[in-house]
Amino acid sequence: MKIIERLYDGSMTMLTDLFQLTMAYGYWKSGKANQQAVFNLFFRKNPFNGGFTVACGLEYVVDFLNSFKFSSDDLTYLQAVKDSRGNPIFENEFLDYLGHMDFTCDVDAMPEGTIVFPHEPMIRVKGPVIQGQLIETPLLNMINFQSLIATKAARVNLAAKGDRVIEFGLRRAQGIDGALSASRAAYIGGCSSTSNVLAGKLFGIPVSGTQAHSWVMSFDSEPEAFEAYARAMPDNCIFLVDTYDTLKGVENAVAVGKSLRANGKKLIGVRIDSGDLAYFSVKAREILDMAGFQDTVIVASNDLDEHIINSLKSEQHAAIDVWGVGTKLVTAFDQPALGAVYKMSAIRDGSGKWDYKIKLSEQALKMNNPGIQQVRRYYDQDKALADMIFDSQHQPEGKISIVDPMDATRRKKLAASTLLYKDLLEPVFEQGKLVYKLPNIEEIKASVAKELGSFHGGVKRFVNPHSYPVGLEASLYELKTSLILKLRNMENDQRQ
Amino acid sequence: MKIIERLYDGSMTMLTDLFQLTMAYGYWKSGKANQQAVFNLFFRKNPFNGGFTVACGLEYVVDFLNSFKFSSDDLTYLQAVKDSRGNPIFENEFLDYLGHMDFTCDVDAMPEGTIVFPHEPMIRVKGPVIQGQLIETPLLNMINFQSLIATKAARVNLAAKGDRVIEFGLRRAQGIDGALSASRAAYIGGCSSTSNVLAGKLFGIPVSGTQAHSWVMSFDSEPEAFEAYARAMPDNCIFLVDTYDTLKGVENAVAVGKSLRANGKKLIGVRIDSGDLAYFSVKAREILDMAGFQDTVIVASNDLDEHIINSLKSEQHAAIDVWGVGTKLVTAFDQPALGAVYKMSAIRDGSGKWDYKIKLSEQALKMNNPGIQQVRRYYDQDKALADMIFDSQHQPEGKISIVDPMDATRRKKLAASTLLYKDLLEPVFEQGKLVYKLPNIEEIKASVAKELGSFHGGVKRFVNPHSYPVGLEASLYELKTSLILKLRNMENDQRQ
Repeated sequence: MKIIERLYDGSMTMLTDLFQLTMAYGYWKSGKANQQAVFNLFFRKNPFNGGFTVACGLEYVVDFLNSFKFSSDDLTYLQAVKDSRGNPIFENEFLDYLGHMDFTCDVDAMPEGTIVFPHEPMIRVKGPVIQGQLIETPLLNMINFQSLIATKAARVNLAAKGDRVIEFGLRRAQGIDGALSASRAAYIGGCSSTSNVLAGKLFGIPVSGTQAHSWVMSFDSEPEAFEAYARAMPDNCIFLVDTYDTLKGVENAVAVGKSLRANGKKLIGVRIDSGDLAYFSVKAREILDMAGFQDTVIVASNDLDEHIINSLKSEQHAAIDVWGVGTKLVTAFDQPALGAVYKMSAIRDGSGKWDYKIKLSEQALKMNNPGIQQVRRYYDQDKALADMIFDSQHQPEGKISIVDPMDATRRKKLAASTLLYKDLLEPVFEQGKLVYKLPNIEEIKASVAKELGSFHGGVKRFVNPHSYPVGLEASLYELKTSLILKLRNMENDQRQ
Repeated sequence: MKIIERLYDGSMTMLTDLFQLTMAYGYWKSGKANQQAVFNLFFRKNPFNGGFTVACGLEYVVDFLNSFKFSSDDLTYLQAVKDSRGNPIFENEFLDYLGHMDFTCDVDAMPEGTIVFPHEPMIRVKGPVIQGQLIETPLLNMINFQSLIATKAARVNLAAKGDRVIEFGLRRAQGIDGALSASRAAYIGGCSSTSNVLAGKLFGIPVSGTQAHSWVMSFDSEPEAFEAYARAMPDNCIFLVDTYDTLKGVENAVAVGKSLRANGKKLIGVRIDSGDLAYFSVKAREILDMAGFQDTVIVASNDLDEHIINSLKSEQHAAIDVWGVGTKLVTAFDQPALGAVYKMSAIRDGSGKWDYKIKLSEQALKMNNPGIQQVRRYYDQDKALADMIFDSQHQPEGKISIVDPMDATRRKKLAASTLLYKDLLEPVFEQGKLVYKLPNIEEIKASVAKELGSFHGGVKRFVNPHSYPVGLEASLYELKTSLILKLRNMENDQRQ
């Protein structure tokens, strides 16, 4: 495709907001381009009113950073960007500087599939402020969306309680990559397969699919349509039974199932895509069982999400074995954006000292945490107990106290020395060099399942989930408080 | 980027659901691959509880169809797709057939920027059933999303009543292309510019942007930050004033504005990104006006959509001149999928006769219209009166009657011979050859504005919009009714 080819003629380095480039220019003009800064990527609230989030998208980020380079094509374009007087915004010397710029930051990140909570840095970037700034937007784009979908998929699969879930959202996804990266994230989050053939080819995800209503409609009758399909693909027979009359459709499927059987083949399943899924699945099960097709599965689809699946299984006692989930999964319909942000938390001054930074806000929730952060997860045996955000320059020792940044009176004391822990941020780039071995997609998928297993069931509940304890290490909390007070005093002084 | 490069090594032809390929295989095995069929792409309900939709995405579709071809790489992948017994689903002869298949369909479509209503075919595909089927999913992916975003953008711009709207959703968009094609659609729908530099480069959209909180935080104080920016880009000064204290920020901006002025430059604007936008904008306006900066604009951002903009302008009397809109626009937050479908409406039998098709449903809304459809829009002077969906094999003449398919007692009679009209579907491909000249993005953008102007204000209202009359031409309505009755009778017969 020309549009897409044009896109990748150059590089993806320009996938950023213009203000990153104007700021980059400003840093360069102010002689600050190489000032060392630390940025953290984090979100403030779990999506879907849920109790957890699944980190996803790091492979895209690694890929992006690995090929971070402005092309001559990019620079030609930037040369033509004008200011309010119609003059070029960027001077040529700066564009030349951009053209020669290599990525040299340290990047630490949570591996894909990590269960993550609000305020925890998922990615930490440390390096020249100009670089940390330029990569903000693409990192947010990739992590925000893929983590959102991996989380949604994990929730859908929790609702399906071990039943297979097939993702088929391509037709309603938000653009080409909105489909492709969603298929990848959905598989990581727990889905068994995707309908998206290109995603299957690209990412090695199992693909599945059989027939649509148009197949049935293209024949003079439904039995003819099923028979023709069975002749063509006798080992891939899942018949869509609701084109005209669902239960009649099941009977037609059974009839063809009998001749499949006579030829040593199998009626794998029937799919119901409309109507009262509870009622029709139970009736279909009866028809199938009466005819001796106990091992034929019932696949259901039609605007499903975790809540509907949960209700169909737990309250409506539907007889559904496999769930096809599309639009609501790949668009994260009830909350289509995660809202992660990327905030500066420290900058190194001329003397080499780190100056810790926060942005004031009337809302405590919106004030970021300062410092060069790391996240430590404590375990009791194999159960996660609590997470602590601490400053990696001040390794906590002995008895530790974790402070809820939203309510300082909530403090959790841990006898840390007796507990197992792991630090969640791992080195990915060191001075721009990739030092991380990307796990394959099956490893990532397995780690989601394993990690989810290490959390109390309440965290995974859909209604009023338990709020897993995440706090600031006490000395980081004190530091943050003193920074806030200092800034507020500065404000007051300025007002007088 | 490797991920993306890998993607476009081959082609985008595999961007489809697996069931399109199994059905294609079934058609081929059944000797029906070249049977002529007609498919229509349409939606059933305007998004956002609105009264209209903006067609968008055709350029992507043209690009996709122009390069429709399975690569050898694709075929190698398909060779490895297995059925339930672990054997290849597709036989090699079929894959060879796919590899040699050229796109030969007729495609008629509404030009991008057309105002479109429920049940109207936006794209009509006529040709070999196997091809019509394979392209279903990618067409839906492209049209669904881009039309959704163009519609959202049109609504946001209607709310802004002529004020400039800047799109900056990249960081929260659903994937890379979820951002890029959204920036394009948002511009078409009425936005003035985007923050997305790559979209600017790719599509020729104006880009804009100045500074973020991190710029301000990277300096020891806000005045220093503004001064440094003004030194670097004196003709691009829009200062972000809410990093610490919004009104103090406006005062700091004014101070730098005075020195800009002293140097013959201008304080273009201030931006407020948090807090009570109505209150702060009014106060900021006062400060600016008092200091003689009447022509400095106030830019506002922070989770804006058409409803919030409408309220800020009409009810809260905010003093905002330019609106920055991100997440809510590019993800179509309150309805992140359009839900367009692609249904077979006719198939040609052995004798060359067209067999018109519908899919039964308990819900009248879900029954598609049969035939080889065209849409005619009637005008009184320059005002759109009503749309008629008719069978292009039966050109209506003389007095015509349009029947609301949801309520047959609602009929609109038009003295058609005295009215101006235009037929909305235009030839795009004839037997696989492109016969359509793609308009440029400025022409498309202009046509949205012009088209919107031809509809009554009630259609564009946000609350309980007027339902613009769209009906079936009376003989098509009769045909549809008789098809439904025939199918329902067949069902009854089968049950007895």
